[in-house]
Amino acid sequence: MQIDTTPATAERGRPATPAYDALIERYARMHRLAHLGSIAGWDQAALMPPKGNEARAAALAELDGLLHRMATETALGERIERAADEPLDDLQRANLREMRRAWVRETALPDGLVERRRLAASRCEHAWRRQRPANDWAGFLENFRPVLALAREEAALLAERTGLARYDALMDSYEPGMTSAVVDRVFGDMRQWLPGLIREVGERQAARDAADPPVDPVGPFPIDRQRAMCERLMRRLGFDFDAGRLDVSAHPFCGGVPEDVRLTTRFTSDEFLGSLMGTVHETGHARYEQNLPREWLGQPVGQARSMAFHESQSLAFEMQLGGHPGFAELLAPLLREAFGTQPAFEPVRLHRRLTRVQRGLIRVDADEVTYPAHIILRYEIERALIEGRIEAEDIPALWDAKMDELLGLDTRGNYRDGPMQDVHWPEGLFGYFPCYTLGAMYAAQWFAAIRRALPDLDARIAHGDLAPVFDWLHTHIWSQGSRWTTEELTRRASGEPLNPAHLRAHLQRRYLG
Amino acid sequence: MQIDTTPATAERGRPATPAYDALIERYARMHRLAHLGSIAGWDQAALMPPKGNEARAAALAELDGLLHRMATETALGERIERAADEPLDDLQRANLREMRRAWVRETALPDGLVERRRLAASRCEHAWRRQRPANDWAGFLENFRPVLALAREEAALLAERTGLARYDALMDSYEPGMTSAVVDRVFGDMRQWLPGLIREVGERQAARDAADPPVDPVGPFPIDRQRAMCERLMRRLGFDFDAGRLDVSAHPFCGGVPEDVRLTTRFTSDEFLGSLMGTVHETGHARYEQNLPREWLGQPVGQARSMAFHESQSLAFEMQLGGHPGFAELLAPLLREAFGTQPAFEPVRLHRRLTRVQRGLIRVDADEVTYPAHIILRYEIERALIEGRIEAEDIPALWDAKMDELLGLDTRGNYRDGPMQDVHWPEGLFGYFPCYTLGAMYAAQWFAAIRRALPDLDARIAHGDLAPVFDWLHTHIWSQGSRWTTEELTRRASGEPLNPAHLRAHLQRRYLG
Repeated sequence: MQIDTTPATAERGRPATPAYDALIERYARMHRLAHLGSIAGWDQAALMPPKGNEARAAALAELDGLLHRMATETALGERIERAADEPLDDLQRANLREMRRAWVRETALPDGLVERRRLAASRCEHAWRRQRPANDWAGFLENFRPVLALAREEAALLAERTGLARYDALMDSYEPGMTSAVVDRVFGDMRQWLPGLIREVGERQAARDAADPPVDPVGPFPIDRQRAMCERLMRRLGFDFDAGRLDVSAHPFCGGVPEDVRLTTRFTSDEFLGSLMGTVHETGHARYEQNLPREWLGQPVGQARSMAFHESQSLAFEMQLGGHPGFAELLAPLLREAFGTQPAFEPVRLHRRLTRVQRGLIRVDADEVTYPAHIILRYEIERALIEGRIEAEDIPALWDAKMDELLGLDTRGNYRDGPMQDVHWPEGLFGYFPCYTLGAMYAAQWFAAIRRALPDLDARIAHGDLAPVFDWLHTHIWSQGSRWTTEELTRRASGEPLNPAHLRAHLQRRYLG
Repeated sequence: MQIDTTPATAERGRPATPAYDALIERYARMHRLAHLGSIAGWDQAALMPPKGNEARAAALAELDGLLHRMATETALGERIERAADEPLDDLQRANLREMRRAWVRETALPDGLVERRRLAASRCEHAWRRQRPANDWAGFLENFRPVLALAREEAALLAERTGLARYDALMDSYEPGMTSAVVDRVFGDMRQWLPGLIREVGERQAARDAADPPVDPVGPFPIDRQRAMCERLMRRLGFDFDAGRLDVSAHPFCGGVPEDVRLTTRFTSDEFLGSLMGTVHETGHARYEQNLPREWLGQPVGQARSMAFHESQSLAFEMQLGGHPGFAELLAPLLREAFGTQPAFEPVRLHRRLTRVQRGLIRVDADEVTYPAHIILRYEIERALIEGRIEAEDIPALWDAKMDELLGLDTRGNYRDGPMQDVHWPEGLFGYFPCYTLGAMYAAQWFAAIRRALPDLDARIAHGDLAPVFDWLHTHIWSQGSRWTTEELTRRASGEPLNPAHLRAHLQRRYLG
């Protein structure tokens, strides 16, 4: 494929930057084509009837291949080199920085490896859907070993190309600039105080529950009312329904494109809190996407900064706001309107429910206090896997030991709710897990910064005024796209680099204060 | 873009056909990419929130441009020439025939013209949405003149390239092999007997209505019940909901891909018959797509034969079946279940309603008797426009005269419900209109063939047994894709070339029998 030559129509007074201009045009084309993949991918998860799957998968793979070829053309790399010598301003330099980063990563892997990895992951994930409910660890291992081998091969090639350590080279796909040296430091610190905190919070909540037993909401909760309530809440949280939708899928996610964000959730009529808070979580992702800088869309600087930054938005909504007493005040009238008046909908009781801490086997069901334990465990295991210090068959023993250490739970023999519970490993996604807890740390750091700027923040949230939070996030995070590196943006937004003390302080204040 | 060289891995005993094999691989890739455009286009019409439109339009235009570049690569044309000398079997020759046809048409138009045409049509169509309700013919003309000029330019270039007459060169896009000589003959014949038939049917129905006044269904008709009823009826008509969906859009259509057909309809709670019969119409299109030969999908022979053939399927369902007394028998219990028992739902009354003939201004509301009058009028006008025998400003006078001649209606000054009523001309789609009535003729011809093969057909339909119809259509039309030319397929299916006598006989038997 040839890159079209864009005429060097320099604007009046702006020096000619033909290589850079051609790169921008090429990126815009890739962006427009990727749009179709995003929508078709969302449709696949939310609406597509079963017999459409084979053709859809083939169509999406074709687009992936096309975009990969476009991103790895020799001419593109040459233009990146030439553009470096052009008279670029700072924003243009930021674009070039991101383009070079993508180029290095995209060209590091031979097409054959990308294809073999896709096939191995697809086979493993497909079998895992049946093997997980059957608790079939031995069967899973058969398919997982090649996935791991290819991930190690990928890590080695990326490491060679980028100069990063092998695990870091994978993590860098999701969290540019993050290293395991940093993760070791912040997770290592957390490992010291988290099990004690979990115990202490558990004891305190058990004592309170004994003195004043919790009151459960009484169902059923009709799905059409749940849906209407979720949409009302999304509006309160600033979701723009002229630029997005809420639909249903087996696994909730935030898809689509910034101009048209597609949230999904799932409903069950005997419970509403799971889908409600899942929707709040995805609304955080959605607002980030809906508020990315419109004038930069299609350029690298127009993209969300990183996956931990993305998680910091969803967790700012779900955890920082969702566990705030003001959120229960805001939610109570919506629940009464949807399901009638119930004692469980009293704001005080609702807030207790939204901040209930419970050690459990399943990561996605975990509260904000126990969640990091699930992540630390996965990080330690997957890093050792990628570095070749352990093999796939070593996972269960490590899993059992770490679950006991961190959460005091016995998981022996329960692979289904143990190392087989997540889709990440079957799909070969190594290096993603840390982003969840890094995101929780960033979210706490943002709220600390907002409180410094607005000392009456909690009073305002308690009165249902969420605007200060959204305004701050818009100014400091959403509107910045990928204009700055992750580290620089962290510093600009909050005045300091990643600082895990904020998450600890937040959890102590909320759960032991 | 380079065509990938597919290795000439000749199957055992099959002679090597490297150029042909590379063409097949290239077509499969275009098919997979076009899949994404089909789904994103359906989503745009059925689900997309308003602020998504600009990015979606840009994404779809990017894909169109990409597919056009893939379809016009020099190497593709060279491969078509080389493949002609390879030892191909008949099916492969059929693919090559269709590829050559597409190549000739795709390369006939310079990219600049394609782009100018797209822009002019987009501007005209966009303004037309406001101008039509305002009856603003003068405003419409401003934007329509450039659309017409570009269509003439396109017609001249296609005519030069294909050797066809100019209007025929446009019509050939939708109806390969059809010429205005044939259309003149069959429409000319119809023009002789249609106005008389319309009058005679009108008188007969008026007399019957006077003797036995029609009974109207009593609403409201709740939309969720209409929807459930439409889905039940679609199942009865063989629509496979594991390979498709029913949704809502402003203008009903049949979109998606053969493996995942996306039907749309629209509902209003004060009337149900419009959306019901619209759904039946689209279900005819859908079954054609869902039953195209699966093993040929992605090859030219795997596509539906032509637009008139497609309309012949939708009209076989909506008109041939929908106006059959057996259809009213089948429908009555579904209506009673949805809306309760009503006198209007008696099969005899329902059938009267489904075969009511009424001269009206609007094509899309017309019944099967008056519909061809709307098409003949449009064909005569648009052909003269393309051939340069008249100009855009001559349309209203011709419209008025022909509406008077064919339907006896006065349309003077009513542009909104006259020449501005359809989206085709604002969008620059000239040569499509004949397909509707050619489709009605083919549908009548298919039913005549089915009756010859199955003399008890009407008794079986009257008992709700539609299988013989679907089996015949599957064997003779759906499963044949584009294996044969339109003319050859007509002959193979029905034993004769296009024969308009069947439509006349059908209308006379049903309405005057």
